Amino acid sequence: MDSKGFREAAVSSIDEIIKYYDNISERPVKSTVEPGYLRKLLPSAAPEDGEAWSDIQQDIEAKIMPGITHWQHPSFHAFFPCASSYPSILGELYSAALSGAAFNWICSPAVTELETIVLDWLAKLLGLPECFLSTGSTNGGGVIQGSASEAVLTAMVAAREKYLTETVPSSLEGDVREDAIALKRSRMVALATSATHSSTKKAALILGVRFIAIPVTSETNYALTGPILAAALETCRARNLEPFFLTATLGTTDTCAVDDFSSISATLSFSPSGSKIWVHIDAAYAGAALVCPEHQTAVSLPSITTFHSFNMNMHKWLLTNFDASCLYVRDRAWFIRALTINQAVYANAPSQGGLVTDYREWQIPLGRRFRALKIWFVLRSYGAAGLRSYIRRTVAYGEEFASWVRERGDIFEILTPPAFALTVFRMTGRDEEEANRRTKELERRMDGSGKMWVTSTVLEGRFAIRVVTSVWKTEREDVERAFGLIVGWAGEILELS
Amino acid sequence: MDSKGFREAAVSSIDEIIKYYDNISERPVKSTVEPGYLRKLLPSAAPEDGEAWSDIQQDIEAKIMPGITHWQHPSFHAFFPCASSYPSILGELYSAALSGAAFNWICSPAVTELETIVLDWLAKLLGLPECFLSTGSTNGGGVIQGSASEAVLTAMVAAREKYLTETVPSSLEGDVREDAIALKRSRMVALATSATHSSTKKAALILGVRFIAIPVTSETNYALTGPILAAALETCRARNLEPFFLTATLGTTDTCAVDDFSSISATLSFSPSGSKIWVHIDAAYAGAALVCPEHQTAVSLPSITTFHSFNMNMHKWLLTNFDASCLYVRDRAWFIRALTINQAVYANAPSQGGLVTDYREWQIPLGRRFRALKIWFVLRSYGAAGLRSYIRRTVAYGEEFASWVRERGDIFEILTPPAFALTVFRMTGRDEEEANRRTKELERRMDGSGKMWVTSTVLEGRFAIRVVTSVWKTEREDVERAFGLIVGWAGEILELS
Repeated sequence: MDSKGFREAAVSSIDEIIKYYDNISERPVKSTVEPGYLRKLLPSAAPEDGEAWSDIQQDIEAKIMPGITHWQHPSFHAFFPCASSYPSILGELYSAALSGAAFNWICSPAVTELETIVLDWLAKLLGLPECFLSTGSTNGGGVIQGSASEAVLTAMVAAREKYLTETVPSSLEGDVREDAIALKRSRMVALATSATHSSTKKAALILGVRFIAIPVTSETNYALTGPILAAALETCRARNLEPFFLTATLGTTDTCAVDDFSSISATLSFSPSGSKIWVHIDAAYAGAALVCPEHQTAVSLPSITTFHSFNMNMHKWLLTNFDASCLYVRDRAWFIRALTINQAVYANAPSQGGLVTDYREWQIPLGRRFRALKIWFVLRSYGAAGLRSYIRRTVAYGEEFASWVRERGDIFEILTPPAFALTVFRMTGRDEEEANRRTKELERRMDGSGKMWVTSTVLEGRFAIRVVTSVWKTEREDVERAFGLIVGWAGEILELS
Repeated sequence: MDSKGFREAAVSSIDEIIKYYDNISERPVKSTVEPGYLRKLLPSAAPEDGEAWSDIQQDIEAKIMPGITHWQHPSFHAFFPCASSYPSILGELYSAALSGAAFNWICSPAVTELETIVLDWLAKLLGLPECFLSTGSTNGGGVIQGSASEAVLTAMVAAREKYLTETVPSSLEGDVREDAIALKRSRMVALATSATHSSTKKAALILGVRFIAIPVTSETNYALTGPILAAALETCRARNLEPFFLTATLGTTDTCAVDDFSSISATLSFSPSGSKIWVHIDAAYAGAALVCPEHQTAVSLPSITTFHSFNMNMHKWLLTNFDASCLYVRDRAWFIRALTINQAVYANAPSQGGLVTDYREWQIPLGRRFRALKIWFVLRSYGAAGLRSYIRRTVAYGEEFASWVRERGDIFEILTPPAFALTVFRMTGRDEEEANRRTKELERRMDGSGKMWVTSTVLEGRFAIRVVTSVWKTEREDVERAFGLIVGWAGEILELS
């Protein structure tokens, strides 16, 4: 494909993409193909000779599209959104053109420097304490990771390094030191709650350290509080375990619960070993709402100043394509200390002079894409005001949806306070068993209709439906229509029972 | 930005990108900006109101381009290439448009199924044993990872799970089991060689297991052989350490050495504990050459049938944009067993029915991009023949470059057999010290000229220059001109000494 061929192919692709977005609501939101559908449609090996773009392109609509679940569809109410936007797509396009493995500053200074700058911009927009800015007083800063899972894993590796440094006497050397570390490791435990995303448990599993999920219930709306944490720390002490890491969440997966940062911070400062615990905030989805000052106040953001790392995914709810996990650290020295491995081939003067940031020292992989571009395009195209207005619009849809559900208290029950454009509800019933049965049937009908996609969860035995209203293509009328359909199916279910 | 605005912006971006590639050789290959250059050019916060695309776009040339090191530049001879190509850019474009977090099959069946299919296509092209195909007899298959580092980490987590399963008696339970595992972990060691890429050491560090680099020297051209491995295993046994993982390399970073797979395989099959060691092949760069049958034969590929995982990065030398690390496993059950964590919100019928692949169970992150598209576009656009011809063309440049270096034995010395378009050489001298001093000065001049970018390494104390000739924009005349310049600088250095 030469330049001329590329121009034709690219312009035609752009037109296809525009048509896709303009008419996305005409497609079924969730793919209905059978497992293995694609193998039947494709040859069993790559072609020997190159094919024309026109042949390749027509296979996208014919063979790929039937197997696509449309995450930007106005009726996508499942999980959390996975964003895209036109400015962000342009960012991906330029990033692909400027392809390079920018692991060190010298590999493309702009890739590193733009990342530091736009992550500072974002930190200010989110109202994060200055300790998380690259220009702050604690040597903090931001780095783009591929996912919230990668972010929590990176934070946990740094936390382990910090804990071992602070608790294994530096006088120990050689085998004695190895043994002391092995013993210490066998006692170290990462903490989260039963509502925390599974990525913390997965990170602990990868590190080979213990993991404890502190149970949280509807009593605190599934949020971790200081007293609950204090009791868990006490239990650890009694079992001779040493907590070194805690994930606190801003917007849990199931219900968008927000842990009580202020009382967690107070508890840790009073606990004898609390100051040694690295606190990571997982704000993967709901962190986006912090662009609005009212959300910053609601979650008492200033109290996270004593915490160690913070992650939010712009690729969920902030109009930026996957992947754009924005991870902030209060003291980058722990990342660098835990993750730096030198090799002769990577040596270069700016790095050795300590003048520059080498992001390979802040992450698991070596190479990295130029992901800052799309963030820059999004922040500039929408501006702070545009992002706030988008968040407020979608939160309002969620509140309105929840108010309609609440008005039909005869058939529905809201299980947790609606938050961040997420409503968690179920059908009522004479007992738990009937409520669960009806709600499962409701989900089955919603899913089977092809008219919307939602996901469900189970809260202390109660089967519940999650409806998220924050996809950028979703408008008020889509939410209203969805509610009408849900009420209709619920009515059918009640008639049958 | 509405559809009309996007069309204008995108077409204009396409034209800019074509201009960029058509004229790339007019730019200096390596950025010459000073650290911190970009902060001086950009505001300290995101704008309050959205900006026009035309304002954003003009900043790319004015502010970003000076900080870009051009990895597709014909004079980029550093590290290894990091690919791009027009078909691959189209893949990134469509992938961005179809944004979604395809962690489970149901999240977009086409994302999962196309990945399985194109990785089978690629495995066949590379001549991998059938055990690495998804349709093979050992339940193997391929998965796209973000980087070779992520691939080796993933493999090592699976290897640890396998080792613990096979060596900790299943009769042990509760605390006794925990203790047995902790003891076992403290003795487990991951092996690699002194020439292996640092990602294996980094993975061991993340897992918290020991790491031993087996020294390899010029005597075996920096390759690991069976006898060297056997001696290392013996040393481990004497120290009461338990090797559970070995990275064998096809194309080391420094010199493109290829470990001796056949004798490694034989050694492991004769060693009492050898059968328990997971062997991972890191073919990150040179694996691409396996599209040519002559390279498959040269590295005795059939002997890797007893090994457990294999990784190559299409994003290095196979015309596919970063990221496209293709990781193959012989028995996917170990990935799934080591990396699966279930959470109610991810439950769905096809997954629970065991009918489908959920790639989240094969990787560290949860979410994933639609990376199979670009691989599909590349394999179809170039065809097997096109890829072979590209590999052969660039290998030939490397061989020709090496022959010119060899012809000038009066001033240059080749340190390892040239391989896979990489030549490693130095300037001669009366002693090691003079050779090193001259070679360092030669690199300084090459680098300072702005006319090419190479990287250097140190082999057993010998400072050496690496010249890679496999960037797709590099033509024979570029390599010839580069050699002419190098000879000129070398002459200047000799005159001074």
